[in-house]
Amino acid sequence: MAGADLVELAKRRGFFFGANGAYGGTAGFYTFGPQGAALKRNLEDAWRDRFTLREGNREIEAPTVMPEAVFEASGHLEGFDDMLVECGECGESHRADHLVEDATDIEDAEALSGEEVEGLIRDHDVACPSCGSPLAGRDVEDFNLMFATAIGPGDGQPGYLRPETAQGIFVEFPRLKEYARGSLPFGITQIGPAYRNEISPRGGLLRLREFTQAELEQFIDPEADEPPLERVADVEVRLYPAAEQETADDDYLDTTVGEAVSEGTIGSPWVGYYLGVAQEWYERVGVDMDRFRFRQHLAGERAHYAADCWDAESEVDGDWIEIAGFAYRGDYDLSKHDEYGDDSFTVFKRYDEPRTVERATVDPDMSVLGPEFGGDAAAVAEALETLAGRDPDAFGGDTVTVEIGDGGEDGSGGGTREVEVDADVANFSVEEVTENGEHVTPHVVEPSFGVGRTVQTLLAHAYETDEVDGEERTYLSLVPEIAPRDAAVFPLVTNDDRLTALADRVAADLRAAGLAVAYDDSGSIGRRYRRQDEVGTPFCVTVDRDGVEGDGPETVTVRERDSAAQIRVPVGDLADELAALRSGGAFADLLDRYEAVETAVETTEN
Amino acid sequence: MAGADLVELAKRRGFFFGANGAYGGTAGFYTFGPQGAALKRNLEDAWRDRFTLREGNREIEAPTVMPEAVFEASGHLEGFDDMLVECGECGESHRADHLVEDATDIEDAEALSGEEVEGLIRDHDVACPSCGSPLAGRDVEDFNLMFATAIGPGDGQPGYLRPETAQGIFVEFPRLKEYARGSLPFGITQIGPAYRNEISPRGGLLRLREFTQAELEQFIDPEADEPPLERVADVEVRLYPAAEQETADDDYLDTTVGEAVSEGTIGSPWVGYYLGVAQEWYERVGVDMDRFRFRQHLAGERAHYAADCWDAESEVDGDWIEIAGFAYRGDYDLSKHDEYGDDSFTVFKRYDEPRTVERATVDPDMSVLGPEFGGDAAAVAEALETLAGRDPDAFGGDTVTVEIGDGGEDGSGGGTREVEVDADVANFSVEEVTENGEHVTPHVVEPSFGVGRTVQTLLAHAYETDEVDGEERTYLSLVPEIAPRDAAVFPLVTNDDRLTALADRVAADLRAAGLAVAYDDSGSIGRRYRRQDEVGTPFCVTVDRDGVEGDGPETVTVRERDSAAQIRVPVGDLADELAALRSGGAFADLLDRYEAVETAVETTEN
Repeated sequence: MAGADLVELAKRRGFFFGANGAYGGTAGFYTFGPQGAALKRNLEDAWRDRFTLREGNREIEAPTVMPEAVFEASGHLEGFDDMLVECGECGESHRADHLVEDATDIEDAEALSGEEVEGLIRDHDVACPSCGSPLAGRDVEDFNLMFATAIGPGDGQPGYLRPETAQGIFVEFPRLKEYARGSLPFGITQIGPAYRNEISPRGGLLRLREFTQAELEQFIDPEADEPPLERVADVEVRLYPAAEQETADDDYLDTTVGEAVSEGTIGSPWVGYYLGVAQEWYERVGVDMDRFRFRQHLAGERAHYAADCWDAESEVDGDWIEIAGFAYRGDYDLSKHDEYGDDSFTVFKRYDEPRTVERATVDPDMSVLGPEFGGDAAAVAEALETLAGRDPDAFGGDTVTVEIGDGGEDGSGGGTREVEVDADVANFSVEEVTENGEHVTPHVVEPSFGVGRTVQTLLAHAYETDEVDGEERTYLSLVPEIAPRDAAVFPLVTNDDRLTALADRVAADLRAAGLAVAYDDSGSIGRRYRRQDEVGTPFCVTVDRDGVEGDGPETVTVRERDSAAQIRVPVGDLADELAALRSGGAFADLLDRYEAVETAVETTEN
Repeated sequence: MAGADLVELAKRRGFFFGANGAYGGTAGFYTFGPQGAALKRNLEDAWRDRFTLREGNREIEAPTVMPEAVFEASGHLEGFDDMLVECGECGESHRADHLVEDATDIEDAEALSGEEVEGLIRDHDVACPSCGSPLAGRDVEDFNLMFATAIGPGDGQPGYLRPETAQGIFVEFPRLKEYARGSLPFGITQIGPAYRNEISPRGGLLRLREFTQAELEQFIDPEADEPPLERVADVEVRLYPAAEQETADDDYLDTTVGEAVSEGTIGSPWVGYYLGVAQEWYERVGVDMDRFRFRQHLAGERAHYAADCWDAESEVDGDWIEIAGFAYRGDYDLSKHDEYGDDSFTVFKRYDEPRTVERATVDPDMSVLGPEFGGDAAAVAEALETLAGRDPDAFGGDTVTVEIGDGGEDGSGGGTREVEVDADVANFSVEEVTENGEHVTPHVVEPSFGVGRTVQTLLAHAYETDEVDGEERTYLSLVPEIAPRDAAVFPLVTNDDRLTALADRVAADLRAAGLAVAYDDSGSIGRRYRRQDEVGTPFCVTVDRDGVEGDGPETVTVRERDSAAQIRVPVGDLADELAALRSGGAFADLLDRYEAVETAVETTEN
């Protein structure tokens, strides 16, 4: 398939196109037309079915605008940057790391420092891609990718468009855990827009400034919770482990999920479980699994807190693109919000049996400390308490040494000093305490899907050309569950009221049955078939004279898109049969049960 | 029903709650929890079914961030303001018009000027609601309600979060008309977030800074297109016309859509058609139609371009709230974008037959005009041409007088002057021209629904209390199509493997059939019923010993929420029966077909 043809078809047939064309366009923003919006929604519904409903997870919908405090905690305010270099001549901005990657053998220039990138730009005489002027000597700056806004009147409160849907889940964990009645594991999903103010948006749906994510945050107790791995243990996957990427062989590992987990190729059983679920899901929605792989992140690629990380990648137009990420994120997200936020981001884990533990305590004699340390007496007592918790053995001798703040009162800037206290004064003791449980910070396993990139993959993988009746045609072999429309209805001719009236009724009946139906009465029947082929409509229903004449029940012809084969079906059966086909039924079964319609059609795959 | 109880239930049971609670909350932003997100999505699906699929309309999905040029054209940049007054003492900002409405008899202070509102604040000694300081003397300022951001690196291009989804449709009209193959009427829908930086957000989902709209833009040829009014002519509606609001009677008009349109109470048949469709749809999704009305806008309330405007209003907590608007917007939107944008926002309307029209033209003799008018000769020729199109009769005499610009070249500022030309020199003639059609600017009929406000209405109208078995209970009598969950599955006890295994299997089967199912095995069965009652789950499925013992097929009990009646159903029938109930089937029919389960349940409505 040719990329340019697909982009042209996407625009012409209403899948997607650059937004605001009448105002010169806005780079990085796309509008989904009628076909694209329907396909995207079907894809989201299929994701929801698999990752929310079938897993017994819960979906939420959080706002897209969030206050600054959230991103201070998440680290986005400080670290969600790209390297920007602005041309001194034409003023155009570029991703400095991408320019360096293009000019050198370096594959991951994002990992370098700004100074290193500036040096490479100078050493390799990198020029501005827009006007050709040299960029040597220009500053490489960090550019935060969040869209900023102000909430409320006046100068307002700083807010940002969320760079990922995940933060809307993490930030509400204190309430979400209540809905799960405080017990792990549980999963929360969200499908919605996310925003990144990209320096250089790419064509199509690949790198947008506004895009849709479908994310699942699986909260687990790392010491106790295991995934139901047996459900996907036999699922075959094509892995591209880090080790293979680093050798010259560059081989794939074709294996099963169960084996990859037990061999340790996939580090986390939870990540393994979701790779298996995703493999089956991608196949269901129509990804060409010969153009699909799971690629493990290289050590330098993943965030410091991510123990194991895999991307789902599809081949589109000769490139491998990331369409989902699967990360074991540990307790990073919740512990950050626990630190920055006011509520508790932990779960109380009740022990099966109460446990008795030893706890060291002190009860300092203030009538001694007071006279001795004056205004510092309270600080000394507090330091003794802290020390008892941390190092009970320190109380074994005659005296105990603790460190207290030197006070900032005299303006000296607050150093520390050591003081010595008689051990007796501390009244140190070890008590037995009964505990019913402990507060644990759940770990997070995050499958995160890019919806637009999956749409682009599905269109690319479904794009086919062949010959029907000696004429070349283009069609999209989308699976019925995902295709924008379930069926199209045509009256063969418009000058026969019997045909148009029945076609109207058939379309209304199918719509009442919840099917998405197009109605087309313009142009030759062949042209109408082609139009539907191009948007991937799996079945075309034609009302012809044979169907309304004679004594039997009214019938229509049903044509299947890929084979162009036709059968004759009674109108009364139509809605049920099409609904069954949409749910995954095979058209071949209908060929046995219904009369074939003779057509001169011959299909030759190109 | 009590508003505070509902808000408390919404939070406790996961419908919705103020966002970012761990960071002190962010006024005007709400998160939909698991129940609320599911209910909202079901509502959106029901809207899509009715207003998109069944009408044969097309849905699109446009970005939420749009460039400034769009809002220059739409008028939002200039005029989308609220009146703000900031307290000089505590710094808090308030809606100045609302303060005046509270302090006076004025009902629509928004229509007053800033100076008038400042005067009223002074005259009525209006004080700051936050700290009590007098606001007299403070400036009342226009505050634009759009959230501003910057697109792209550096200072970027100014952009805004869209204040309504509609602009994403209007701005793409040049492409959307192609998908409709240039022929009217056609309708485009969109469901998605919209944003208004409200000065004083209100509680619950009523006035948010981020909210969801479901909008339909119906593009019509005002001279030719009629709605299929007959489909809803007999639908009964309760109208609250402007005339009634202005009289002391304050009466409703109970009538039918057909009658209201033919009597002229509803000015536009298109608006009438959608009021009828909406009336039936609101009833379907569970609005209490005794607490519902269509209120016509008063003359001062509607935008200058809107010919007829009605709101759907529901009664919530003693107040009438707007939950949808239905406006005949004329050609306002498209003609503005046609003026500001680069593409054409008109449709070429082909005549049935080519029409021959007379067109007046001139062919000025430049060899005469040149010497006579020098540098102004071209301007004179152009003025003659314009005059010929506007007033052909002017060429009837011996001379023709035209007005030309006085040039700004001498710095005089460019006035105009009259010049006289011999009629012969103009070479005036009238030609016959054949035209195949004309460019028309479509008119727009806009039904616009607030999704969050409808969610709040449904919860308020579904909130019920009664007594079951002598115990008070709270339940939500949501219709099955809209309820967050389709069913809940319980093993009666957890210490019998047969019951838990079957309950697991039943839950998995129902999920595989596409149903949203909760699983609960904790607490007494009565408590589990109450939890589901509170979130409006219409059916609870319990796996008990009677169902797994004996020779017959495995059975479960199914309990209906409102009546608390129970029947025993074979496991094999369960998915189909529940799916049929979800699609609108009556539980009463099942009572005939299945064995009733004797319970001591007695229900008394409070």
